Amino acid sequence: MSNYYELAFKYALKYRGKIQIIPKVPITSQKDFAIWYTPGVAELSRKVRENEDLSFELTWRWNVVAVATNGTRVLGLGDIGAYAALPVMEGKALLFKYLGGVDAIPICINERNPDEFIKIVKLLEPSFGGVNLEDIKSPDCFYILDKLNEEMNIPVWHDDQQGTATVVLAGLINSLKIVGKRFSDIKVIFFGAGAANIAIIRVLREMGVNLSKCIVVDSRGVLHKNREDIEVLKKLNPWKYKLVLETNEDNISDIREAFKNADVLIAASRPGPGIIKKEWIRLMADDAIVFTLANPVPEIWPWEAKEAGARIVATGRSDFPNQINNSLAFPSIFRGSLDVRSRKITKSMLIAAAHELAKYAEEKGLHEDYIVPKMVEWEVYPRVAASVAVEACKCGVARKTTSWKEEYRRAYEIIEESRKVLEVLMREKIVN
Amino acid sequence: MSNYYELAFKYALKYRGKIQIIPKVPITSQKDFAIWYTPGVAELSRKVRENEDLSFELTWRWNVVAVATNGTRVLGLGDIGAYAALPVMEGKALLFKYLGGVDAIPICINERNPDEFIKIVKLLEPSFGGVNLEDIKSPDCFYILDKLNEEMNIPVWHDDQQGTATVVLAGLINSLKIVGKRFSDIKVIFFGAGAANIAIIRVLREMGVNLSKCIVVDSRGVLHKNREDIEVLKKLNPWKYKLVLETNEDNISDIREAFKNADVLIAASRPGPGIIKKEWIRLMADDAIVFTLANPVPEIWPWEAKEAGARIVATGRSDFPNQINNSLAFPSIFRGSLDVRSRKITKSMLIAAAHELAKYAEEKGLHEDYIVPKMVEWEVYPRVAASVAVEACKCGVARKTTSWKEEYRRAYEIIEESRKVLEVLMREKIVN
Repeated sequence: MSNYYELAFKYALKYRGKIQIIPKVPITSQKDFAIWYTPGVAELSRKVRENEDLSFELTWRWNVVAVATNGTRVLGLGDIGAYAALPVMEGKALLFKYLGGVDAIPICINERNPDEFIKIVKLLEPSFGGVNLEDIKSPDCFYILDKLNEEMNIPVWHDDQQGTATVVLAGLINSLKIVGKRFSDIKVIFFGAGAANIAIIRVLREMGVNLSKCIVVDSRGVLHKNREDIEVLKKLNPWKYKLVLETNEDNISDIREAFKNADVLIAASRPGPGIIKKEWIRLMADDAIVFTLANPVPEIWPWEAKEAGARIVATGRSDFPNQINNSLAFPSIFRGSLDVRSRKITKSMLIAAAHELAKYAEEKGLHEDYIVPKMVEWEVYPRVAASVAVEACKCGVARKTTSWKEEYRRAYEIIEESRKVLEVLMREKIVN
Repeated sequence: MSNYYELAFKYALKYRGKIQIIPKVPITSQKDFAIWYTPGVAELSRKVRENEDLSFELTWRWNVVAVATNGTRVLGLGDIGAYAALPVMEGKALLFKYLGGVDAIPICINERNPDEFIKIVKLLEPSFGGVNLEDIKSPDCFYILDKLNEEMNIPVWHDDQQGTATVVLAGLINSLKIVGKRFSDIKVIFFGAGAANIAIIRVLREMGVNLSKCIVVDSRGVLHKNREDIEVLKKLNPWKYKLVLETNEDNISDIREAFKNADVLIAASRPGPGIIKKEWIRLMADDAIVFTLANPVPEIWPWEAKEAGARIVATGRSDFPNQINNSLAFPSIFRGSLDVRSRKITKSMLIAAAHELAKYAEEKGLHEDYIVPKMVEWEVYPRVAASVAVEACKCGVARKTTSWKEEYRRAYEIIEESRKVLEVLMREKIVN
């Protein structure tokens, strides 16, 4: 780990950032500026004034996403502020382009008040084709996402919620196939009640999981109706309070009791090891599925979970099998959404993406150590984009129509070109 | 003109924007993301949290400028709003990179209230190394610029004010050399009292021009102390009101009287022809200098001004001699400011830029039809950057020190590389 830290610092000083702006139009003489800038550009402004949506046809807006944060919950570092969040937003922008062909801009906003933050992001709508929220603390992130989703006419996404939920869902679809269980039958322990797990629960509800027999565990223990902080929760975190009502119908308060006969554990809490105990895993049902997603170290080491009887184990790390990595989702989900000019990213689009991810891995051949695609399998990206775009058309949020095949080809070309640009610049030793 | 409009529209549909984001770090395998993104990136965030200024060393921030507008005065099109302003901001971003090696981001903010606009731009400071304001209506633009300049710790620039003032000053320095007059002796007519002329007056005051014998003309005629709208002006536009007190000591109200014996005319009003009359030019002093800057058509055609006795004529157009074009200034002024991590762009930095521009043209050989460099003479850009950087160090607004030679070399390399990237991509037919 510390090796990565050293390298990251060393290379940051060398490259001074990870992304840059370049022209995408040819310039051969001064005369070209009369077309790219004044007087020619006035005509484009006139056209957009007549019809706002033309900004998607005549400028880069069709492909631009704001990677927006207030820095209140950056990685595992907590509320370190908007300045310190910039390196992460820039890294994300790099992934957006390289994996999804999306032009993403780090937008770090020095504003912790959720309503003020919402106002600012809304007022920036003319500049962007989409918004990827990032590293905003819980529960503010739920309010901010829901409100912006409602009030903006471009897709708004909170990657720590929906991105994680998408890839977890893909992994769970395939895990259940391997162990031969159904969504409607499983008992799930949600360990951690932050952005990720609350979003995962929202999606699993949609998939037919019976929440009343599922159990949520937060930093104070098992969530149940008699806990003394329930009234406070009701006021400060209605999203979590809702779970008090929906889950744990037997009103279990003991953690061992909670784990008993659980089919699935989804932990998205804090860096381990030792946060989840081996003995708890032992209490789970046969063929237990264990997702421990904390970074940089999972809540329990994968080999320990296996020793305790887990059949399938997934983590957030690239050096273990089954990496649950948001990068599998957000680049292609935005690709597909932007390409049909979607106004939203609906739950059904997220689920379509998860199904496509799962299907890709299934076609390659499922087994305990391969439940989701790997990041290097980039053929999956245009496939996910296509499925997302088609679903956007189906559920009525797209401004343009497309077919699966058409969007697949388009996404493929766009992503391929973004890789080719870097390849050429590396070959020419301009990037090296 | 209409030909440029047609071409601009045709190519906008083809290219769908003028700029894009690309990586500036090499990516050869999935492992690299552990350095460019998590877990490596956490180290960079930790460093910036300890010292905010490190964001200039460890991210692209050192080279990023927001091209920010609310769309209240876009080109000659008026208040067409933030959406319709995007094509212009994007064109500007293209110029920023191609001419100055600066990564510029179009930021169109859907907010007409100046105080709210100011608040938002300030809260975006963690994302940017500088702010280029653009196409904001007068007099709001004066208030917005002054306030942001005061309250932000990165350079804020309003190109319609300072950019124009810089290039006008360069042209005037050389024109006065040609005709053998001095700043302290000239009588200037300022035709138009918007962003450009008010900024030009601010700078000429600094250059020793005796404003009391100069005259301002706005859309209601000559500005003098007995005009009936003076009280309204005092309330709504204190910047213009100040000129009532400073200029026109003889309280002239007649336009012909105003032009009599004027040495210089600087018109920045509205598109001509026919806005400035030949007969007025005839009333000017010998060796009259006439700058008519309205776009796309100057207030009087250059040949008419010449026929009426003007010795030196400049316009905003590239198809006539002596183009007064902001593009000569903003890319290199930002280049130099960013490279020494300047907190401001002071008046003295702007004047240093104008002197360098003037000097370059002088070295090439001044004459009536060559008073400022042409846009294609790109060797002037690193020179201006160097002079600006050195002045920033001198006047105490720079966070880093440099020498003229060092900054010249650095700016030269950065700008050269930004051209080379495009060249390579054009050669490889990726941009074509």
